[in-house]
Amino acid sequence: MADVFLQEVGPRDGLQMEAVFVPTAQKIALIDALTATGLSRVEVSSFVSPKAVPALADAADVFAGIARRPGVIHVALVPNAKGAERAIAAKADELNMVLSVSRTHNLANMRMTPEESLAGFRDIVRMGKGAGVLLNGTVATAFGCPFEGAEPPERVLELVRLYLEMGCTGVTLADTTGMANPRQIEDLAGAALSIAGAGALTLHLHNTRGLGLANVFAAWRAGVRRFDAALGGLGGCPFAPGASGNIATEETAAMFSEMGVDTGLDLRALLEEARGLAAIVGHDVPSQLTKSGLVEDLHPAPAPR
Amino acid sequence: MADVFLQEVGPRDGLQMEAVFVPTAQKIALIDALTATGLSRVEVSSFVSPKAVPALADAADVFAGIARRPGVIHVALVPNAKGAERAIAAKADELNMVLSVSRTHNLANMRMTPEESLAGFRDIVRMGKGAGVLLNGTVATAFGCPFEGAEPPERVLELVRLYLEMGCTGVTLADTTGMANPRQIEDLAGAALSIAGAGALTLHLHNTRGLGLANVFAAWRAGVRRFDAALGGLGGCPFAPGASGNIATEETAAMFSEMGVDTGLDLRALLEEARGLAAIVGHDVPSQLTKSGLVEDLHPAPAPR
Repeated sequence: MADVFLQEVGPRDGLQMEAVFVPTAQKIALIDALTATGLSRVEVSSFVSPKAVPALADAADVFAGIARRPGVIHVALVPNAKGAERAIAAKADELNMVLSVSRTHNLANMRMTPEESLAGFRDIVRMGKGAGVLLNGTVATAFGCPFEGAEPPERVLELVRLYLEMGCTGVTLADTTGMANPRQIEDLAGAALSIAGAGALTLHLHNTRGLGLANVFAAWRAGVRRFDAALGGLGGCPFAPGASGNIATEETAAMFSEMGVDTGLDLRALLEEARGLAAIVGHDVPSQLTKSGLVEDLHPAPAPR
Repeated sequence: MADVFLQEVGPRDGLQMEAVFVPTAQKIALIDALTATGLSRVEVSSFVSPKAVPALADAADVFAGIARRPGVIHVALVPNAKGAERAIAAKADELNMVLSVSRTHNLANMRMTPEESLAGFRDIVRMGKGAGVLLNGTVATAFGCPFEGAEPPERVLELVRLYLEMGCTGVTLADTTGMANPRQIEDLAGAALSIAGAGALTLHLHNTRGLGLANVFAAWRAGVRRFDAALGGLGGCPFAPGASGNIATEETAAMFSEMGVDTGLDLRALLEEARGLAAIVGHDVPSQLTKSGLVEDLHPAPAPR
C-alpha cells in the first residue's frame, strides 16, 4: 500500500485545454500506459457537451476502449444528470462533480449558478447511488478565483461538508488557476482534513505561478495523502497563456520518491510517457523532469581540460 | 527589517550560462534596477578567467558602473587570490568562494582539486580581511553531485564549520544542479542552521526538476531566512538543456508575499524587470509568474455566452 496516492487527471484536465483533438486510439493507449504505472485513479474524460469541450467529445468511446485494471478507479467528470447518465452507461467507476465556490467562476465554467449546479448534483448522486458507482465532489477555485479573488474558507469547508452529507466518498479542493500558497494550503487543507479525513480528501493543484510542488509539500506535511496531477504538467489556465498547467505527475512522483515516500508508481515508466507527450499534443510540455531526468541518472565526469 | 532576505544572483549565475554577451551597460542598468527593488545582496559578477567565462569578462567595468546603495551588499565570486585582488580593486563589498563537496565536480567546475581550492581560500581570506570586505563561503553540490550522486552530509557540515573557522561571515549551501528534495533540505539545512545560525546561512537552490520553491518552503519552515535567487529563473544546468535554472527571484518573492512573510521587496517592480529579461538574453525565461501575473491581478468575468 502506497503512502501517498497520485491521481492522474491529464486525459481530462490536460487534454481539454489542447487545441488539437487527440485521436481516440491515442487517448486510450495513453490511459492504458498510465494505469500500467500503478496509478490508483485516472480521470478518463468528461461527459460535458461536445460543443463546449470538443477535445473530449469521444468520452464514451474512450471509456469503451480502455483496459480496466482491478484497483484502479476510472473517473468521469459530469456536469449534470445527462452527463451522469452517459458516464454510468460508459461504466465509469466514479462520477466527479465540480462546483466553484466563486459564483462568477461557476457561471463562466459550468454556465450555471451554484444553485443550479447543486440541484443537478442531487440527481447525479441519486443516479450514482442507484448504479453503485463512487461519487466525488470537487470544490473549484477553493484557494482563490481569477475574477473574485480570495474566497471565504468557511464557504469552502461548508461545501466539503455538503458533498459528504450528499453521500460523496471523496472530496477534492481544487486550486483551479494556481492561486494557492503553502501557508494557505496548511490552513485550509488542514481544516478540510479534519472534516473529510486523509482517505477522502484530494488536493488538485496547478503550477501556474511555480508554487505547485511547494503546495504539495506543505499539504503532505499537513497530512494530505491524495493529489491530482497531470502527466507532463499538461493543462493550463485560460488567463495565463503559456504558463504551466497542473502539477506534473512525474515530477510529483519523483519528489516523493526522493523524499522516501512510497507512491507505488513506476517512476521511470511515467517519465517515459511524459517524454512522449510532446508528440501527442504537438508542443513542448511544462515538466522540467522531462528535460533534466531523474536525480539518480548521473552524468560522466568531463575529461580534464 | 524584512523577515526573509532574497539575494539576487542572476547577473552572475544567470548570465554566465548565456550564449550571448550582454553589453556592460545593460548589465549595469539591470543591476541598478534590481537593487532599487529592495534586494539586500546582489552577486554582481565573477572574477574568473575571461577565457573560462567570457560572458562575465567585464566584471571590473560592471562594478565600476553600478550605483552603490547603502545597505546593499555587492558580491563578487572569486576562485583564487588573483580574482580576489581584482574584486577588491573593483570595490566589491563581499568575496564569495566556491568549493564543491564533490571532488569530481570541483575539478570540472573550478579546474582545481578541493585541496588546491582551500589553499587559495587562505590567501583570499587574508586579502579580504586586510581590505575590510565581507567573506562568504559556498558549498557547491551540497545536496548531490551530477557525477558522484549523493554526498555525505557530514562532509558538507565539515565545510560549513571550516568556512566559519576561516573567518567567513556567511556560508551558502548550493544545490548546484537541482538535486535536492524538501526532506533533505529539512535535515541538512536544519543541521547547518544549528552551526551557522539563520543570520549567516544562505540556501542557493535551482529549479532543475521543478522542486525549487518546495525546497524554499521546506527550508523556511526549518528556519532558513536567506535565499539566493535569479530574476526570471535564469541560469541552468549544463546537463539539462532547456530545463529551469535558479529559482526565480520574483516567484520566490511572490510566494513569501502571499504567505504574509515580508521580503522588503517591490514585487511589481521585480516582475516588470523579469518580464524585460527576454529582450536582454534573447529567449523566453523559465519564470511562470512572468506569464501568469500576480495572484492579486484579477481578470474581468467573461460575458455570458
